[in-house]
Amino acid sequence: MGYCIGIDLGGTNIAAGCVDKDGRIIGRCSVPTGAHRPAEEVISDMADAAKKAAENAGVSIEEVVHVGIGVPGTANSSAREVVFAPNIYWSDVKLGKIFRSFLDIPVSVANDGDCAALGEALFGCAKDYENVILLTLGTGIGGGFIVDRKIFYGGTGLGTEPGHLTVNLNGEKCGCGKRGCFETEASCTALIREARRAMHRDPSCLLWEECGGNEDLVEGRTVFAAARRGDASTLAVLDRYTDALAAGTGSLIGLFWPQAIIIGGGISAEEEYIIEPLRRKLPQFLYAGDKLPVPPVFRASLGNDAGIIGAAFIED
Amino acid sequence: MGYCIGIDLGGTNIAAGCVDKDGRIIGRCSVPTGAHRPAEEVISDMADAAKKAAENAGVSIEEVVHVGIGVPGTANSSAREVVFAPNIYWSDVKLGKIFRSFLDIPVSVANDGDCAALGEALFGCAKDYENVILLTLGTGIGGGFIVDRKIFYGGTGLGTEPGHLTVNLNGEKCGCGKRGCFETEASCTALIREARRAMHRDPSCLLWEECGGNEDLVEGRTVFAAARRGDASTLAVLDRYTDALAAGTGSLIGLFWPQAIIIGGGISAEEEYIIEPLRRKLPQFLYAGDKLPVPPVFRASLGNDAGIIGAAFIED
Repeated sequence: MGYCIGIDLGGTNIAAGCVDKDGRIIGRCSVPTGAHRPAEEVISDMADAAKKAAENAGVSIEEVVHVGIGVPGTANSSAREVVFAPNIYWSDVKLGKIFRSFLDIPVSVANDGDCAALGEALFGCAKDYENVILLTLGTGIGGGFIVDRKIFYGGTGLGTEPGHLTVNLNGEKCGCGKRGCFETEASCTALIREARRAMHRDPSCLLWEECGGNEDLVEGRTVFAAARRGDASTLAVLDRYTDALAAGTGSLIGLFWPQAIIIGGGISAEEEYIIEPLRRKLPQFLYAGDKLPVPPVFRASLGNDAGIIGAAFIED
Repeated sequence: MGYCIGIDLGGTNIAAGCVDKDGRIIGRCSVPTGAHRPAEEVISDMADAAKKAAENAGVSIEEVVHVGIGVPGTANSSAREVVFAPNIYWSDVKLGKIFRSFLDIPVSVANDGDCAALGEALFGCAKDYENVILLTLGTGIGGGFIVDRKIFYGGTGLGTEPGHLTVNLNGEKCGCGKRGCFETEASCTALIREARRAMHRDPSCLLWEECGGNEDLVEGRTVFAAARRGDASTLAVLDRYTDALAAGTGSLIGLFWPQAIIIGGGISAEEEYIIEPLRRKLPQFLYAGDKLPVPPVFRASLGNDAGIIGAAFIED
């Protein structure tokens, strides 16, 4: 039996892992992306990282049957191409073809959020479920939809964009050009933005103390520190934040009816302020939330490894 | 080769059609639903209507290989049950099993919007596409998602609820209990509600003339009549309405990436005021609408027959 290699191509690092059939990473290699370089050079480094990960696992490259790559952007999985990935300045890059010119092993390509969702669904906290939604709360909202234990790519195979669901027609302008996208209302960035606004409305807000009077230093951690001290303005921000999180999540449930929801990203560690309120509010933000089964909400369990493990198991 | 029967179970009528393999309705029967009666009686009438439709087609009931039923509510298709259908007062009705006690032919059950989507996707305006979204603009927003020429039921098999996507967190209260659902912002009901509000803001609004001074008489038709006369308040209402329509449609596209969008319902006949603005606005309301292909928008072509034809072709 062979091994698979999963590569998580990020804006900062290329992280490759040699993965066994049970979803364990048995060898790793991480190198800087150097995203400003021509795509060919980056891809050459990806192939080298893949070989090195196998070597570090004590696996000969001949035993590697598949390489899966998660990319930070929109992928055309059937063509094995990256349509665009603004963080790494790629547009229409024939990733699969170029990769095979450096390392001739069957290659699959998918969005990194889709890969992370697949990793969690196959080997993480949702491994008992066949239909799962992962939402990763970070700078934006990434994630993916797993239907029948496979990535749901949608009709034209471009993967899903859960972060760009419109949840607030009159909301904030999003980087994508729309207004009130799910991620402009419920990403970690949105939480920090609203925390800063609350500070300006309320000079006695404990966030001022937590950031030492410098609002530029407000981050996720700061918000939860003020919340734990019972600061009313901060708790109100979190209340509106989890409303938006529940609204977007509820919308997605009403479309996909998954058996489980997984929340990832740093702030998902805040069980009391993020996961619990989401569980409590979901029925209100779900069509027929009182009549239909509300799926359980889990915190992601594989961390950054989810993307590598999921990439290794992409099926075309 | 056999025939299929499609039944569209509505709040008012049971419409049955005997459908040939090319999606043509070759015999029909329609009877009142009498929704206040026990479900068993309604289902008995459905079986009779099915037999009558076959008879009217000159087809013997032995030649009928499948009966598909579209229901106005949430169906559990794999269990062939209706979970709930408030318009006909049903809750947890074992429709498939009871139907077969009256007429023993393999039965499938799905939501009526899903059936209509399947009908349009297989035999209507989108028959050249494998992945299609239908949105029907009426009292609410119904519709369905066709993936690989089949109804997309979601993970737990309950079908999708496009009308209950949250598009406006601070919007109108929806009948489902949430706020700012797609259908509270972009159904025909929403259009009429906003038209009445515009009348109250603008006493010179031509809608007053069109409804003879009685705002209760405002309906879809009235709105388009005032629009055709160039009434500024009415055109502003339509502009906001098509923004909401484009926002919800764009969100759905970003999740499913269909190859075509079909718009149904009476007001979809208004090419100039509904379909054209939707086409024009979609790129603005679509993630990466300037980089990814924007699917074409069609007007539904099968009318009420879509539900019957689609039901006939439900696959489990």
